[in-house]
Amino acid sequence: MSEQKLKIGLLGMGTVGGGVAAILERHREALSEKAGAELVLERVLVRDPRRPRAVDLPAERFTTEAASILHDPSIDLVVELMGGIEPARSYILEALRRGKYVVTANKDLMARHGTELLEEAQRHRARIYYEASVGGGIPLIRPLKHCLAANRIEKVIGIINGTTNYILTRMALEGSSFQEALAEAQARGFAEADPANDLEGRDAAYKLAIIAALAFRRRIAVEDIYVEGIAGVAAEDIRYARELGYAIKLLAVGEELLQGLALRVHPTLVPATHPLASVLHEFNAVYVVGDAVGEVMFYGRGAGAMPTGSAVVADIIDAARTMRSRIKDGIMETTFAPASVLPVSRLVSRFYLRLQAQDRPGVFAALATAFGEEQVSLDMIIQKRSEAGTAEIVLVTHDVIEERFNRAMQRIEACEAIETVNSVFRVLE
Amino acid sequence: MSEQKLKIGLLGMGTVGGGVAAILERHREALSEKAGAELVLERVLVRDPRRPRAVDLPAERFTTEAASILHDPSIDLVVELMGGIEPARSYILEALRRGKYVVTANKDLMARHGTELLEEAQRHRARIYYEASVGGGIPLIRPLKHCLAANRIEKVIGIINGTTNYILTRMALEGSSFQEALAEAQARGFAEADPANDLEGRDAAYKLAIIAALAFRRRIAVEDIYVEGIAGVAAEDIRYARELGYAIKLLAVGEELLQGLALRVHPTLVPATHPLASVLHEFNAVYVVGDAVGEVMFYGRGAGAMPTGSAVVADIIDAARTMRSRIKDGIMETTFAPASVLPVSRLVSRFYLRLQAQDRPGVFAALATAFGEEQVSLDMIIQKRSEAGTAEIVLVTHDVIEERFNRAMQRIEACEAIETVNSVFRVLE
Repeated sequence: MSEQKLKIGLLGMGTVGGGVAAILERHREALSEKAGAELVLERVLVRDPRRPRAVDLPAERFTTEAASILHDPSIDLVVELMGGIEPARSYILEALRRGKYVVTANKDLMARHGTELLEEAQRHRARIYYEASVGGGIPLIRPLKHCLAANRIEKVIGIINGTTNYILTRMALEGSSFQEALAEAQARGFAEADPANDLEGRDAAYKLAIIAALAFRRRIAVEDIYVEGIAGVAAEDIRYARELGYAIKLLAVGEELLQGLALRVHPTLVPATHPLASVLHEFNAVYVVGDAVGEVMFYGRGAGAMPTGSAVVADIIDAARTMRSRIKDGIMETTFAPASVLPVSRLVSRFYLRLQAQDRPGVFAALATAFGEEQVSLDMIIQKRSEAGTAEIVLVTHDVIEERFNRAMQRIEACEAIETVNSVFRVLE
Repeated sequence: MSEQKLKIGLLGMGTVGGGVAAILERHREALSEKAGAELVLERVLVRDPRRPRAVDLPAERFTTEAASILHDPSIDLVVELMGGIEPARSYILEALRRGKYVVTANKDLMARHGTELLEEAQRHRARIYYEASVGGGIPLIRPLKHCLAANRIEKVIGIINGTTNYILTRMALEGSSFQEALAEAQARGFAEADPANDLEGRDAAYKLAIIAALAFRRRIAVEDIYVEGIAGVAAEDIRYARELGYAIKLLAVGEELLQGLALRVHPTLVPATHPLASVLHEFNAVYVVGDAVGEVMFYGRGAGAMPTGSAVVADIIDAARTMRSRIKDGIMETTFAPASVLPVSRLVSRFYLRLQAQDRPGVFAALATAFGEEQVSLDMIIQKRSEAGTAEIVLVTHDVIEERFNRAMQRIEACEAIETVNSVFRVLE
């Protein structure tokens, strides 16, 4: 970059792109001061340059040719906001090969091809920043890399999907069903028309892959993360959980255990006094346990044009400040060894269980025997007055290794007196 | 520093010093990798070198002479953990003059003399880091300087004193009186023998001065901060607040208003659904509103050897990485203009009020008239069955400018039928 200007090429001008342009426009002077250079939106790659846009840029700044950004040596920094794997991946690789710095908000790409991109950056003495790929505007990547650098991270637990948290919050506050809450989330723009990626926990798993890599300094394959969505959470479960002192949240959990990493996304009963239980609506939070700092939590909006734009622009400033220095990165992700990830069957957890049983003598004894034979001990039991000959029973176990719990469940499902097992969720300590 | 080693001189080896030494020892290799140099605790200034210490350092590393650290050109970085204004201030100035980088955890010093130290650092192309001066291990300084750099910060609201939060939490959870909760806090090490600085809100005001300076990019004089402590919070107030849907917290609030900054520390009714309401026990949190990112919150342990040590070591790593680079600081605090701070009488707030009145006809009318004449309108009213001819009345007003509220209070106190005004607190929107 010249002494005075940092020229930015923007790939994609959707919601987040609009946010970035608005922030750059609104705080032009202050941002230039912080960056040590004027930040200039030199060229913007779009599909249709004639489409009207909220951002006030001369028509000649828009292009439909990626090469006019990637091959322009005057462009110092490429900001990728297209999303998806291709062509974003090829464009970023091309930019890095030409020594350009890159800022990306692309979660899928960083989760799947992060190592490749980071290695290419290192090879060409360039850099790639990705704060906006997880948790919208919440500072997460920089705190994990720098602020908590003195710690061995023991655990990260995130509420990192706004759609599911919005749905679970509606269900808890309004008593709505899953379907009602989903419809509400879609009406209010917190869920997409096809929300499967969010509801089934895959979006959270991608984000967990990015965070856990930094927290545990390991390369993580998204496929190694155990994933369970929220479709099985019923209004009744939320009511019982509350009665027992818990909220139900979709948690993304990463833990470093002696034998390897535990990485999983699943609906979880969270104690009402835990700070994650108070993370409501579309908000996100990541709770981190470090051996020195103890528990810290980062909370905020995990999505949206302006919050995500805030993270993108922070990365742009950081890139501008670093570009001409010889400063080394604090954590070199490229040095991380592949993670050894434990199968979920070997993890230890408490379990919440809701089932329907025949309301007759001996049923509870059969249940207790099934658990007893697998040495699963029970911590809490609720049995409400039955209706029409069926009793609803809610149980919470003590800590048990999952494979043992699963064997107990097979025994229970084989019991003649057990009509349905409605829900099985893990419980956070 | 040499290519291989960063030599550190430590001023003071109390609780936090022990934490820093323990972290450096425990993660020697990982920290050196992150810092790009081996971190060597070269010399430690103590009062009594023969005193036994938890840290495993050869006897010759201890000194009683500050000069043997400050005048030693081989020492690259001075870490000040003595606390208090002098001699810490003179030692830091001396280190900066000799071009050494400085890391400090000294809240009083940064709040009172931060500008002087930052200017001296700039003059000598050195740097001073102070993440550990506020909020223990919670990342705050770095997020405000870097992660939220794209934002104009509108508001910072902190629970930044662990002692008072512990006391208020005990009162809320156990129904204890202020005195009982204070005794408990002292017994458990969360309050000092002389807790006045904490209880009266001065400790929080110092921390607010440091945070608000960065958030609003202004120089702030601690004396300009309005301060009210928690001694006036009664168990009854906490009960009534809960009934109305609030928790009582000691908040440190900084806001940028059109006419200037509002800076104040006082007990405050916080809506139960606000994320700050769930910050319990000795935990701290800082809630920040930025124009792009919206609401974010940083939560964790605000004190303690290891959490504070975590922040100090993160600063050491940052210093090591930056020392040989030409990188510019993102926010230069030395460029901040002095703040114009508004008197609290001109701020607008809702108020909570608890008073004892004679239980006879016309009393409520008198109260209503006093408020009405000053155009203060009421939002919530509780009057419980009276005892022995005295009625306890709790009111919450709508927004009102403080001077107007104060005039209404004068009218009320002049009412013959009003026996005592027990409590007056502000209410967070």
